[in-house]
Amino acid sequence: MTAIPPLDPPARLLMGPGPISAYPSVLRAMSAPLVGQYDPFMTGAMSDTQELYRQVWATENDATLLVDGTSRAGIEAALVSLVRPGDRVLVPVFGRFGHLLAEIAERALAEVHRIEVEWGQVVPVSLIEEAILRVKPHVLALVQGDTSTTMNQPLDEVGAICERHGVLFYTDATASLGGNPFEADAWGVDAATAGLQKCLGGPSGSAPITLSDRAVEAIRSRKRIEAGIREEGDESASDFVRSNYFDLGMILDYWGPRRLNHHTEATSMLYAARECARVLLAEGRDAVIERHRLSGAAMLAGVEGLGLTVFGDVAHKMHNVVAVEIPDGVPGDAARGALLDDFGIEIGTSFGPLHGRVWRIGTMGYNARKDTVLTTLAALEAVLRRFGASVPAGGGVEAASEVYSGAAG
Amino acid sequence: MTAIPPLDPPARLLMGPGPISAYPSVLRAMSAPLVGQYDPFMTGAMSDTQELYRQVWATENDATLLVDGTSRAGIEAALVSLVRPGDRVLVPVFGRFGHLLAEIAERALAEVHRIEVEWGQVVPVSLIEEAILRVKPHVLALVQGDTSTTMNQPLDEVGAICERHGVLFYTDATASLGGNPFEADAWGVDAATAGLQKCLGGPSGSAPITLSDRAVEAIRSRKRIEAGIREEGDESASDFVRSNYFDLGMILDYWGPRRLNHHTEATSMLYAARECARVLLAEGRDAVIERHRLSGAAMLAGVEGLGLTVFGDVAHKMHNVVAVEIPDGVPGDAARGALLDDFGIEIGTSFGPLHGRVWRIGTMGYNARKDTVLTTLAALEAVLRRFGASVPAGGGVEAASEVYSGAAG
Repeated sequence: MTAIPPLDPPARLLMGPGPISAYPSVLRAMSAPLVGQYDPFMTGAMSDTQELYRQVWATENDATLLVDGTSRAGIEAALVSLVRPGDRVLVPVFGRFGHLLAEIAERALAEVHRIEVEWGQVVPVSLIEEAILRVKPHVLALVQGDTSTTMNQPLDEVGAICERHGVLFYTDATASLGGNPFEADAWGVDAATAGLQKCLGGPSGSAPITLSDRAVEAIRSRKRIEAGIREEGDESASDFVRSNYFDLGMILDYWGPRRLNHHTEATSMLYAARECARVLLAEGRDAVIERHRLSGAAMLAGVEGLGLTVFGDVAHKMHNVVAVEIPDGVPGDAARGALLDDFGIEIGTSFGPLHGRVWRIGTMGYNARKDTVLTTLAALEAVLRRFGASVPAGGGVEAASEVYSGAAG
Repeated sequence: MTAIPPLDPPARLLMGPGPISAYPSVLRAMSAPLVGQYDPFMTGAMSDTQELYRQVWATENDATLLVDGTSRAGIEAALVSLVRPGDRVLVPVFGRFGHLLAEIAERALAEVHRIEVEWGQVVPVSLIEEAILRVKPHVLALVQGDTSTTMNQPLDEVGAICERHGVLFYTDATASLGGNPFEADAWGVDAATAGLQKCLGGPSGSAPITLSDRAVEAIRSRKRIEAGIREEGDESASDFVRSNYFDLGMILDYWGPRRLNHHTEATSMLYAARECARVLLAEGRDAVIERHRLSGAAMLAGVEGLGLTVFGDVAHKMHNVVAVEIPDGVPGDAARGALLDDFGIEIGTSFGPLHGRVWRIGTMGYNARKDTVLTTLAALEAVLRRFGASVPAGGGVEAASEVYSGAAG
């Protein structure tokens, strides 16, 4: 057989809905040497990471840690640890990732109740409260930013509603965290999960999670410690979590002072997660959100300046991604291919009802920058023209530049 | 609050039971730039990785891929995808990780039957066959190398027995793969999983897995595609896998030609996994196993040359780890601490019945080398002497050197 050569990825500017190009310092952190699982440096790095993510999530939750897996692993860990078979779970759906939350809860044998709004809209809070009153769920599972539609669900009133009705409030902030406001404590969030590969500017493969005391109590009540490391006095609940890997009770014991062995922490991904949060906080949490807001506004103005129609309720769009309708007559995938092959720039396709209808263009993490926005718009203009679309010459770059100079002025 | 500084791990020579120091080229691979999820380079790197691991596992299984999580994630993916609630699972236990397989199967609501032998022994194949006849399990779940005891369970006859009795044969090769013989096809293995952090010389966080056609058929019969990407004609089985993240049917659709979106592949960990296999195969699979055998033999001779007693059935020890009894009067944790603090060398503690009784010393992956073995023995001698043990001067280094020169001569 032919020998497989060393890895040598092509240069890519990733301007899709994520994953996006990582911060260079995050890539460098991953090449740092490994240390042992209980090395003081390792447990120190774990504690540092917890402290950093408390600031990212805006929380004082002690239970702030990482799940070793992609953002989807974080979602499943939260849901299977909070939801017992037969529990009612309410899932407002406004895009693909609402369906995912429902699907994961169904796999956990929850009684899932969905309320749905059209793709491109967010869910009115009144509708959520109505459904809570009707369904009386144990858990509300609500996406914050759904990349499939670009929408950013308002969460600020939801926690208070949940608390009033004794509902645990879980939210999936994978696509939104770091690039849009998130206030775990102020909003009364009981559990939230994310991934690194969006606004946090790292690779997929580590899922930050934060849990309120109320969520921890619910999880602790289902405690089961595995044989082999179980000690006398360690009793198991009968409604134990139906997963070992995702049992947050055990993962908390590993991250907590007891340091009870569970999995072997993914050292390099921990390094990456720590560095993602470190660079975010070094720049400043609000400054990073503002940078996403500004670059998102510039990209929005830019695609409109190219004569493209933006999809969905723009007032509720996430800062970090915009969906644009593919102009009539332009072959969506071929145009994306030309952008990738000839310019090294990736923008995204889409799922479900939007498949073939919109492209999704991201401005997130390291790539929420003026140079990346202008370069992408210049290249997009060239590609649109090549495929026969009528585009105003320089219209994208000019409109975006104005947003940047307006902000600077 | 105090700012948290950039990551700067101390220099460590990791000679414990894993994680161990990664190959430098694996660390470098992880700092390679990211590409998009469906970039031709990315799907090509996924296919390369599959082909590389087919050679590592010695299999022609098409279903050879990675699970995004630690080795424990691979175990859970295999078990929850193969085992339905109520299915009988037979778990021979000869150390901590047998208990883990049983625990994971119990969480999946299997009817678990254990057979146990004393820690330090392997399970006689006749005992396994007897238990299969008695229990009539759907799945036999058997650890190959259990790092808790250092034992390497013989597997070469087990597949044929399982096939004769219609049992699916799953094995956990986390601690053994790469450093000891493994022949997935020749041994009739239906499912096997591993991690990178042992003999493969990478960081924890990615779990190679291989599945026979028989295993794939069992998994495919439980197919369920999530709403949001489900298409007409995609039907769901009623005994669907009780996990979305670990549903190998969906993960296979993502790695297979359909490339159906599931999680976002952990790009940097994929790069690491690919490089681990690439360097192994570039050196040669048999050559790497022989290097582990030689360094394992040298470390064994070395610790005996220091007058230490080796734990367990040495004839069935894995090449890559040895357990030594802590000499009377030597405080085990303080001695390990001195080795770490003063020499930068980590050796391992132990679990369960062996806790406080033995240290575990590894020679695996990048660290299965003459210089690491001799350095560790020299440092261990110094530390043992400091804590008042009577050790023959130079006895460890000399005995190990003889093994290396004997092999060279």
